[in-house]
Amino acid sequence: MPVLSEREPHPRARRGRGRRPAAEVRADVLAAANALLLSEGMGGFTIEGVADGAGVSKTTIYKWWSSKGALALDGYLSAAPCTPAFPDSGDIAADLTAQLGAFVRQVTGTAVGRVLVELVGQAQTDPALCEAFLERYTGPRRRLAAEAVRRAQGRGQLRLDADPEAIVDQLWGACYYRLLLPHGPLTEDFAAALVKDLLRGVRA
Amino acid sequence: MPVLSEREPHPRARRGRGRRPAAEVRADVLAAANALLLSEGMGGFTIEGVADGAGVSKTTIYKWWSSKGALALDGYLSAAPCTPAFPDSGDIAADLTAQLGAFVRQVTGTAVGRVLVELVGQAQTDPALCEAFLERYTGPRRRLAAEAVRRAQGRGQLRLDADPEAIVDQLWGACYYRLLLPHGPLTEDFAAALVKDLLRGVRA
Repeated sequence: MPVLSEREPHPRARRGRGRRPAAEVRADVLAAANALLLSEGMGGFTIEGVADGAGVSKTTIYKWWSSKGALALDGYLSAAPCTPAFPDSGDIAADLTAQLGAFVRQVTGTAVGRVLVELVGQAQTDPALCEAFLERYTGPRRRLAAEAVRRAQGRGQLRLDADPEAIVDQLWGACYYRLLLPHGPLTEDFAAALVKDLLRGVRA
Repeated sequence: MPVLSEREPHPRARRGRGRRPAAEVRADVLAAANALLLSEGMGGFTIEGVADGAGVSKTTIYKWWSSKGALALDGYLSAAPCTPAFPDSGDIAADLTAQLGAFVRQVTGTAVGRVLVELVGQAQTDPALCEAFLERYTGPRRRLAAEAVRRAQGRGQLRLDADPEAIVDQLWGACYYRLLLPHGPLTEDFAAALVKDLLRGVRA
């Protein structure tokens, strides 16, 4: 793909007699990154491809993003829904089942879910992406779930000596595991079984 | 790195007047793949690098391996310990805690563990690697754990309506999740807490 220099702006970069404002360039880059990610996945995602799609130089992209992975995450999040709320019905089992089921619906069988696992994959060899992913994607979502568990502990519904973070790992982590290493189907029934087993225990 | 053609064998390929036997070439390729993986990780792992290390052409490698990931997995497994046995003491809680703790020890803080997560990462954009990884790495290990759970169900120690596969996901999956997305420390204490919470349940 041709790489355009800063001195010869891409036709899309012309706006009257001047350059596009920085915010507009940034938005174009994110939109191009998102589109490339959804059409090609991480396997076909390149800085060159995004530069070409947005009509900017690779140099411009490297000014703002430290790696291909960092750009991919920003492109993904720019069009992703906000962190979903975690409604509190007072019934922690029902709330965990609903939230975990919604996560499963969101990540299975959609391009968005495919991109999510590819970002996690890329993060294994891109420490900056891994850190950004924890901070901006899984972190806020985990916090909401852990807070729901703490509220239920405060109401005496869950054991106080169980670690809320470990509970999140045994629910969401089990789903990520099936998403990344698909030994079995990742379904809403599976999500419901995870909540049931963990809350009541599997000891006979 | 220079790529050697089939018609001009690398000096290491000469053995008397003939070529190395295929089995020997294959072993050299696997040893070179393993060495490159442990020294550079998946980020620096290339077919060229392995070809160079083993003194063979890229063509030879492509005859046997369909992708960089497939070669990396074979290189990794060629030097990996066999699937660990799953001893049966009669106490399922103790056995699960010991096995999960051993897994955590194996994958944390070692080059081998780092390579493992990088293979899982690469598998997200390499379907052949993903399939091979499930079949040859996680599959046999999961089967042993699920069989231990079934034996405990047979002895009346675990609930019969709990799915052994889901139990494996809630223990090993939670550890993989922390390994791949390190929101919290992956320790033997964490592993022990996972077993304890799942067996007794977290409902107050």
